[in-house]
Amino acid sequence: MGVSLRKARTIIRKTLEKGHEMELKPLSVVVLDAGGHVIAFEREDGAAPGRFAIAHGKAYGSVMLGLAGTAQMQRAEAQAYFMAAVNGVYGGQVVPVPGGVLLRDKKGAVIGAVGVTGDTSDNDAAAALAGIETAGLIGEI
Amino acid sequence: MGVSLRKARTIIRKTLEKGHEMELKPLSVVVLDAGGHVIAFEREDGAAPGRFAIAHGKAYGSVMLGLAGTAQMQRAEAQAYFMAAVNGVYGGQVVPVPGGVLLRDKKGAVIGAVGVTGDTSDNDAAAALAGIETAGLIGEI
Amino acid sequence: MGVSLRKARTIIRKTLEKGHEMELKPLSVVVLDAGGHVIAFEREDGAAPGRFAIAHGKAYGSVMLGLAGTAQMQRAEAQAYFMAAVNGVYGGQVVPVPGGVLLRDKKGAVIGAVGVTGDTSDNDAAAALAGIETAGLIGEI
Amino acid sequence: MGVSLRKARTIIRKTLEKGHEMELKPLSVVVLDAGGHVIAFEREDGAAPGRFAIAHGKAYGSVMLGLAGTAQMQRAEAQAYFMAAVNGVYGGQVVPVPGGVLLRDKKGAVIGAVGVTGDTSDNDAAAALAGIETAGLIGEI
Repeated sequence: MGVSLRKARTIIRKTLEKGHEMELKPLSVVVLDAGGHVIAFEREDGAAPGRFAIAHGKAYGSVMLGLAGTAQMQRAEAQAYFMAAVNGVYGGQVVPVPGGVLLRDKKGAVIGAVGVTGDTSDNDAAAALAGIETAGLIGEI
Repeated sequence: MGVSLRKARTIIRKTLEKGHEMELKPLSVVVLDAGGHVIAFEREDGAAPGRFAIAHGKAYGSVMLGLAGTAQMQRAEAQAYFMAAVNGVYGGQVVPVPGGVLLRDKKGAVIGAVGVTGDTSDNDAAAALAGIETAGLIGEI
Repeated sequence: MGVSLRKARTIIRKTLEKGHEMELKPLSVVVLDAGGHVIAFEREDGAAPGRFAIAHGKAYGSVMLGLAGTAQMQRAEAQAYFMAAVNGVYGGQVVPVPGGVLLRDKKGAVIGAVGVTGDTSDNDAAAALAGIETAGLIGEI
Repeated sequence: MGVSLRKARTIIRKTLEKGHEMELKPLSVVVLDAGGHVIAFEREDGAAPGRFAIAHGKAYGSVMLGLAGTAQMQRAEAQAYFMAAVNGVYGGQVVPVPGGVLLRDKKGAVIGAVGVTGDTSDNDAAAALAGIETAGLIGEI
């Protein structure tokens, strides 16, 4: 079962609401499907213009590798040239830091990913996770 | 004055509603700002996975050239090598057909663009225009 | 429901067998999932070395656009600059001719695509379709 | 003498079987010829969608440089900018870690490479080597 547009909208709204509650800077949120393709995206007023690419890069790497942002960051810190090489084979589309969150179904299969950017990476991830859980889904940061 | 996220959401919702009313295939809709950067995007359930890139390409060329999709298509038909060259300088990101719609303010200044894809190019443009007008903005197809 | 590796193997074997039966040149066959990602590929002995990219391009465009090779070719013949622009937004990865075959489930949803190259485009498509049907799936050339 | 499709299939099957025996995560395996071109590839059910690019990058660098993954990794650790530069000249297609395995004939000439990804780099390489040897060929990890 994939992520419907209705679910994607809910994730985005709940993530943005959580950001407001946490008093974060303006956020941008993307939801990708299990193939890494964009379902929905929103950038809040006041966010920098280039935020789509950052949000997308966090989520895209998560789906393509099956590794959430925290695990990608650990690999990048342990073996920088490996993540640089991974970025090469994926056309430079991977941003390996927290804020890339895997979406899993109840059996644990990856059904997509959420990418959040705008505040610190850890706050981005916390807002995403809260948004995902409020929307009734399982996130892995 | 730019396009707020609130306005972008309204444009997308009204365009999708118009598509349903016209009984079109599932649509994908992007809204870009005056710098050609993504504010919001939605892809309806059942649309092909690659629709973000097509919707984006229609809107991006519109903003970057200050020419809506219909005018770009006319230029492509009259002078194909010119639009090919344009695509070269813009990194291959331009899709010069109807469905790329300029957003103008009341003085006529370009404040962004909408890109719609999923049905015929003419139907895509008609849904976008109706959505933009229902949202209280001025569109140029 | 997606295409399992077991199904992908069967499609490839049956397509190659059909090619032998039709006395075609050595074929190359790729199977992609619903997100356009490679599940399996085989290139027969005697085929040119660059065949992966051609097979992939036929199948990739089919999935990303939700249009099989024959429909892509018709669009390319009617509006060459449109398919050129589509190739730009997909990074030059689309080969819009027969031999790109959509895989559909019983409800008609696209679950992947097959790309075949090596003989004429029409023979490539015929072998693919026979292979897909022998494997118990629904193909659209 | 090159690697036939029959041999490539055997390598892939035996590598996957070894992965099951070692209880590894789902693997993806590519076999390239002496020119670095894809002969065959399989991705197991449950593997992340982007695994083709990683498997390919491990094998491609091995063939193009005539250096297996372990030697590439040592070079990357000693001189990161060199492997970054190598990736520049090869279009970002090199992943310099274990799991890229050279195939040699009995005289020691390189006749292709195998790329495996899915578990740790060392386990990927061990499965590949076992698969290659069971298939009656000589591998260098």
